[in-house]
Amino acid sequence: MAKAPTVEDVARVAGVSRQTVSNVLNTPSIVKAVTRQRVESAIAELGYHPHAAARMLRTRRSSTIGIHLDPYAGGVSGVVLDRFIHALTERASDRGMRMLVFAARTPEEELARLGEIYDRGEVDAVVVTGTFGGDPRTGWLSERKLPFVSFGRPWGVDDVAEPPHAWVDVDGSAGTRAATAHALSIAGPRVAFLGWPAGSGTGDDRERGWREAMAAAGAAAPRYTAVDDVSVARDAVAAALAAHDADAVVCASDSLAIGVHLAAVAAGIPRLPVIGFDNTPAVEALGISSVEQLPEQVAAGTLELLMGPTGTAVTPHPDGLAHVLVTPRLVVR
Amino acid sequence: MAKAPTVEDVARVAGVSRQTVSNVLNTPSIVKAVTRQRVESAIAELGYHPHAAARMLRTRRSSTIGIHLDPYAGGVSGVVLDRFIHALTERASDRGMRMLVFAARTPEEELARLGEIYDRGEVDAVVVTGTFGGDPRTGWLSERKLPFVSFGRPWGVDDVAEPPHAWVDVDGSAGTRAATAHALSIAGPRVAFLGWPAGSGTGDDRERGWREAMAAAGAAAPRYTAVDDVSVARDAVAAALAAHDADAVVCASDSLAIGVHLAAVAAGIPRLPVIGFDNTPAVEALGISSVEQLPEQVAAGTLELLMGPTGTAVTPHPDGLAHVLVTPRLVVR
Repeated sequence: MAKAPTVEDVARVAGVSRQTVSNVLNTPSIVKAVTRQRVESAIAELGYHPHAAARMLRTRRSSTIGIHLDPYAGGVSGVVLDRFIHALTERASDRGMRMLVFAARTPEEELARLGEIYDRGEVDAVVVTGTFGGDPRTGWLSERKLPFVSFGRPWGVDDVAEPPHAWVDVDGSAGTRAATAHALSIAGPRVAFLGWPAGSGTGDDRERGWREAMAAAGAAAPRYTAVDDVSVARDAVAAALAAHDADAVVCASDSLAIGVHLAAVAAGIPRLPVIGFDNTPAVEALGISSVEQLPEQVAAGTLELLMGPTGTAVTPHPDGLAHVLVTPRLVVR
Repeated sequence: MAKAPTVEDVARVAGVSRQTVSNVLNTPSIVKAVTRQRVESAIAELGYHPHAAARMLRTRRSSTIGIHLDPYAGGVSGVVLDRFIHALTERASDRGMRMLVFAARTPEEELARLGEIYDRGEVDAVVVTGTFGGDPRTGWLSERKLPFVSFGRPWGVDDVAEPPHAWVDVDGSAGTRAATAHALSIAGPRVAFLGWPAGSGTGDDRERGWREAMAAAGAAAPRYTAVDDVSVARDAVAAALAAHDADAVVCASDSLAIGVHLAAVAAGIPRLPVIGFDNTPAVEALGISSVEQLPEQVAAGTLELLMGPTGTAVTPHPDGLAHVLVTPRLVVR
């Protein structure tokens, strides 16, 4: 089979410049009728359809939003991002949009995937999740002017006054502040905190809410640490709970909360108030209170940033809106 | 702006039939060169690009598989389908494919969405989940010859010898047979079953596995019933467990198993063997045994049915392969 004709072939046959061919394809109104006809004849003669299709693909609306799907990690809290994707798909559908979901093992592989999708004009916008310091994706997207929103704020900069890109996030410290205030109101003043090792933006933010609420109440209690695992969490607090060192425990996640709950049952204090974070099916099944991230509101915020309050097409940053911070809700059980 | 030219306009200007225009667009090799040139000139003259693009969209590979995403239903077992979608996205990525995800509230709305996607040539194949008797989607897809696989067998027909369409599923009765045999080997002969109300294909299949294993062992024990809810399950078995009517309980789901576990703890027999189904993060956190559906193998089976064992393009039913039944794995804790 012969090689597919290129825009250069069309320019040569029509006796015009490459730019003129491009103008005929993209902005025909600025090209003289006689020139346009010559180019169109050359296009027909050469059968220059594929590129025309590609051009139309590039410039037409795809009514599609791209999102990378992380590998299934398991664990209690894995459902939060899935709930966000469910909510995003539903709300996007209400606005006539679909989601293109793709997998990639590294940010580099994700960029390669995004490059294919961008070249083929298959998405009108992209949602990025799990952003981190020095994330190569946000710069790549900004350079190509492909509209995008990150779920997760750009940590380490003044992301409210001068956000480097549009973002949506859940106010973690507001969640643990509410949880701590509730625990102070129903239990003693010693509301302990079980958090992850320091250094994660999300974890430090959730710890901050606990510190602020404790400081506001003039109360003090220990801060325990565990990685996000039920057994590790149980072991981390077992001795302290057996010694009755805490009146309640606020946790950075539901996995940690389940561990604390199991330690409390083992210590003979099954009614110890424990509050998790994420409100997953697991804590619901066990009757443990938790902070609900409201993924539906995160999804609504994402689409507002990309499409305005009621739009049906991507028009990023309507009214200069650059971030949405969702206040989570404490679910008391 | 003028109305976009149609294939009829091209036929009129070129002085040929609509079918000839269609042939030039789709199978140019069967059209005489002089006729082809006349049609191509008419196409150029009229600026008949959009339809050409649509045709190319229709006939070119999209490298995309479509799947409907159900609304987030919550609950302990909601993660199983999400795990399948994660695994499908990852394995499809390995073969150069992406997933187009869309929402719809009813099968009718799903068909409307599929219609748009089909018309725009945006998917090479479709995966259907949650099939049911009289499902309008499978017939619709078969009529249009759009390759598809259902996750969930076509209940009520001889789906192995004469499957109406390609399907992949998990062998539920094999799972409960293994769970029951294990419970018989570690506990007494009275291995009870807690299932959903009769009438669901999936639930009846899981109950069958328990009945078969009990019959094979010559054992007998009660069959309890509850809808898929932790509290309802707990209440359904509380009296029986308090009366020590069962040596172990095999359950149709993890939600049911958590309810039984809570009832056992309340009855002072926290070590009563309880086996769930789905191996969700919730039972993992509680140390309850469960049957693992192996969503990764379900995803692999789906792609094998659509693309062959190692292919990178959709070629449905390679070697006449029409179904894949995955044997689940008992995870003992």
